[in-house]
Amino acid sequence: MDFKEEFNKKIAVVNEALEIFMPPPDAYPPLIHQAMRYSVLGGGKRLRPALLIASAEVAGGTARDVLPAACAVELIHTYSLIHDDLPAMDNDDYRRGKPTNHKVYGEAIALLAGDALLTLAFQLLTESRTGRAADIVRVIHEVAIGAGAGGLIGGQVVDTFSTEKEIDTTTLEYIHRNKTGALYRVAVRSGAILAGAGEEELARLTEYAEYLGLAFQIKDDILDIEGDEKKLGKPVGSDIRNKKATYPALFGLKVSKEKARSAVESAIGALSPFGKEADFLRVLVEYVIKRDF
Amino acid sequence: MDFKEEFNKKIAVVNEALEIFMPPPDAYPPLIHQAMRYSVLGGGKRLRPALLIASAEVAGGTARDVLPAACAVELIHTYSLIHDDLPAMDNDDYRRGKPTNHKVYGEAIALLAGDALLTLAFQLLTESRTGRAADIVRVIHEVAIGAGAGGLIGGQVVDTFSTEKEIDTTTLEYIHRNKTGALYRVAVRSGAILAGAGEEELARLTEYAEYLGLAFQIKDDILDIEGDEKKLGKPVGSDIRNKKATYPALFGLKVSKEKARSAVESAIGALSPFGKEADFLRVLVEYVIKRDF
Repeated sequence: MDFKEEFNKKIAVVNEALEIFMPPPDAYPPLIHQAMRYSVLGGGKRLRPALLIASAEVAGGTARDVLPAACAVELIHTYSLIHDDLPAMDNDDYRRGKPTNHKVYGEAIALLAGDALLTLAFQLLTESRTGRAADIVRVIHEVAIGAGAGGLIGGQVVDTFSTEKEIDTTTLEYIHRNKTGALYRVAVRSGAILAGAGEEELARLTEYAEYLGLAFQIKDDILDIEGDEKKLGKPVGSDIRNKKATYPALFGLKVSKEKARSAVESAIGALSPFGKEADFLRVLVEYVIKRDF
Repeated sequence: MDFKEEFNKKIAVVNEALEIFMPPPDAYPPLIHQAMRYSVLGGGKRLRPALLIASAEVAGGTARDVLPAACAVELIHTYSLIHDDLPAMDNDDYRRGKPTNHKVYGEAIALLAGDALLTLAFQLLTESRTGRAADIVRVIHEVAIGAGAGGLIGGQVVDTFSTEKEIDTTTLEYIHRNKTGALYRVAVRSGAILAGAGEEELARLTEYAEYLGLAFQIKDDILDIEGDEKKLGKPVGSDIRNKKATYPALFGLKVSKEKARSAVESAIGALSPFGKEADFLRVLVEYVIKRDF
């Protein structure tokens, strides 16, 4: 398997699907639809949808069947970024090298565009092509929990309010497990459930997702120190300026890198019952900590 | 049927269920859960959940089976109010006679509490007690469309950006049909679908909901002129100050009242194929335009 080729193919499929699933820019009222499209179609690593598709494929499903769900997790990710960037939250002016949504469309529209993307995500989840409605209901239930106040949003809250306060390991882990980890977990599980995975397969894939999320977040923290602003499309050093809880702040760079490496190995270990069909997931987690963007 | 008694019974059942479905105030992180509870459990007419239950009952279902869905539509209503009150939107300090969410918890938490309520709503929708998962999927699909950029949020957008601009009938009707109407429509249809209503029943109930939403919104516009601030729990005259598109602004008070009355009659007319089981809905729409709060 040529990982890069396979990954690019998945990204292309997702981008094409997002273009189809997003309302057209002239749908009434146009302003909100344009704002939604601006953030969703304006790039992004598409890691979450690629993961969802890859997980479905490991469980015997096809990309086509789970594309609406794959796009749904990307919309949830995008909505959380739009709201996170708002002046009331992190007050960021740039995202992926472009002005943030509220910088272009104003705060009111950015707020509502985020709301609309979250809502559209749940609509898309109902549109997965699988024979079993019960699986769709289960996926929606899990996505809502993962994206909710006990998941993604909870991580956001603790992250925002731990700024400039004492950093401790428990808080850091809570933030990582929820702010980033929850959506990876949900992506992998949703793909597998929709493809009809058994509970044992699901447990292994879930373990994989948890370590992947950890590796991803540690890498993100490291990039905020060592990264290249041009490649990242955002300023580096903001975690230090904002006194954010990060792995390097708590453990130093060297130990953080060891922890990221160890998370990668645990992620790959979780995939041991699977054969070649899980090769994409194996290389993906390596890619996650090697990336420079 | 004693309408007032029946309505109070429904409100009590909904309030009890909301208390159970809302995460406890000490769930981690507590701040967000307290903010969510503040707005949800802090009163409200509970019209939407009552409608959902009543519609289910007309179609042969029970309150118990549809309670999660009934609470879900109330959470969507509440989230939209929290976001609508934010400084980036209407910048309101009071709601239901109490300080708005962001006045108590700050803008960041209010924003995230809104997000979390919308997300929790979709979680609750998956928890309806009905034998058919396909009905749940259909309901979630309809709720997402009704609450999305082509429904509730679209109405919000046009309402916000039509402020201080020329008011025309098309715009006014769009705002009403979406900002308020969409959620009434969704509530009535969700209750009926979950209770297994046939398509003909569903069509009649939908028509009822559309006229009810219209009557409700015209009455709201009238109350902003003639209402009592104490009873309403919010200042009157804000529509005029903000040059909002309203029925009285466009047609005058007298014609607006006639239009509200005519909407009530059309709503009741839509229920003509039903017997006594629809009496609650019949009296409810009368109540909606007689209310002074």
